[in-house]
Amino acid sequence: MTTIQTTPADVFTLASWLAGDFSNWEQAIENPPFFAHIRVCIRPLPVIPSTEPPEGVWLYSEQSYDFELNHPYRTAILNIVSRGDHLEIVNYKLKEAENYFGASRQPERLQELTPEQLEKLCGCTMLVHRTENNTFKGAIEPGKQCCVVRKGKSTYLVNEFEVGEHFFSSLDRGHDPETDERVWGSVAGPFEFTKKTSFATEVRSHEVSSV
Amino acid sequence: MTTIQTTPADVFTLASWLAGDFSNWEQAIENPPFFAHIRVCIRPLPVIPSTEPPEGVWLYSEQSYDFELNHPYRTAILNIVSRGDHLEIVNYKLKEAENYFGASRQPERLQELTPEQLEKLCGCTMLVHRTENNTFKGAIEPGKQCCVVRKGKSTYLVNEFEVGEHFFSSLDRGHDPETDERVWGSVAGPFEFTKKTSFATEVRSHEVSSV
Repeated sequence: MTTIQTTPADVFTLASWLAGDFSNWEQAIENPPFFAHIRVCIRPLPVIPSTEPPEGVWLYSEQSYDFELNHPYRTAILNIVSRGDHLEIVNYKLKEAENYFGASRQPERLQELTPEQLEKLCGCTMLVHRTENNTFKGAIEPGKQCCVVRKGKSTYLVNEFEVGEHFFSSLDRGHDPETDERVWGSVAGPFEFTKKTSFATEVRSHEVSSV
Repeated sequence: MTTIQTTPADVFTLASWLAGDFSNWEQAIENPPFFAHIRVCIRPLPVIPSTEPPEGVWLYSEQSYDFELNHPYRTAILNIVSRGDHLEIVNYKLKEAENYFGASRQPERLQELTPEQLEKLCGCTMLVHRTENNTFKGAIEPGKQCCVVRKGKSTYLVNEFEVGEHFFSSLDRGHDPETDERVWGSVAGPFEFTKKTSFATEVRSHEVSSV
């Protein structure tokens, strides 16, 4: 597929498409028992962390099993920025993530967030382009540096995703740093999420950089 | 692992261990997001279908996502019989399966079952031995004849399972009949179920054959 250069305004478009409460319910029902019913809730931060200069759009993301919405198995702070011909989604973890569990659906709790609570995940930035199908496609930066430990075993993350206005799909896999063999991940294919609720109106567009 | 010959009395033991309401909740929580939360409920039939001669123990099995207990994605009638040095679990489907959805937890509804409603699934019988760890291990009979259609594609089922007094594990995979390649199934390993409720006291032992 041909990739298309992004513009600084695409930061806002991508953030608006990602801002929502997503579910893969249709996929779970069509493929029993091989896909868990997962929810991904991505909420624009109501207050932008005071980076210098303030740049891009900031989002809080929670992934959880549908039966445990208030105990997400993965949370992240995402900063979408424009970098020349492409976008980047910079990944941060929260130092005290448990304090924010459930906040993707209670966004007022995110007002307390300060930059000191964030820790950048080096090697885990997503590089994003537009496609000719009016979607964005992204993948983790090269270098095998985004380390994920599962069951005591260190792996590096390989991720691919595609985002449209009303959906996104995502495939995560962990590989052995020495042999490059796949250690964990879905063989049944990517998770396919559809947006059930949009939070696009909450995206703070005035913070979008024009680098 | 060494396999051990079974005795006719093992029909009752295997049936008693299988009769229960199982969940893989622990597995789902430990491996997000790669295992759906699944429930398997296996209920002894309150009335034995009038086969001639009446033989073995009969069970009704439902598998479902935990969030859809009354809409199981797979149901079966299982007949456990003794065959010389091993046991067999003969698989039947219900011709009007929807009429019994939810009956694994409402066993009085199973009293209406007649042999005319059952259809044997040829090629899908499980062959079962004892192991030295006080479990039973089984696998589908050889021959690649247990056909499963997923998304319009015909595959043959390969299944392995192990049953203990309080757990069972199960690995299902579909393979291409021509190339033998795996088409679907879990790469993350078998489903691991633990018994949450036992229905062992409902097993009708007097029907156990002594062939």
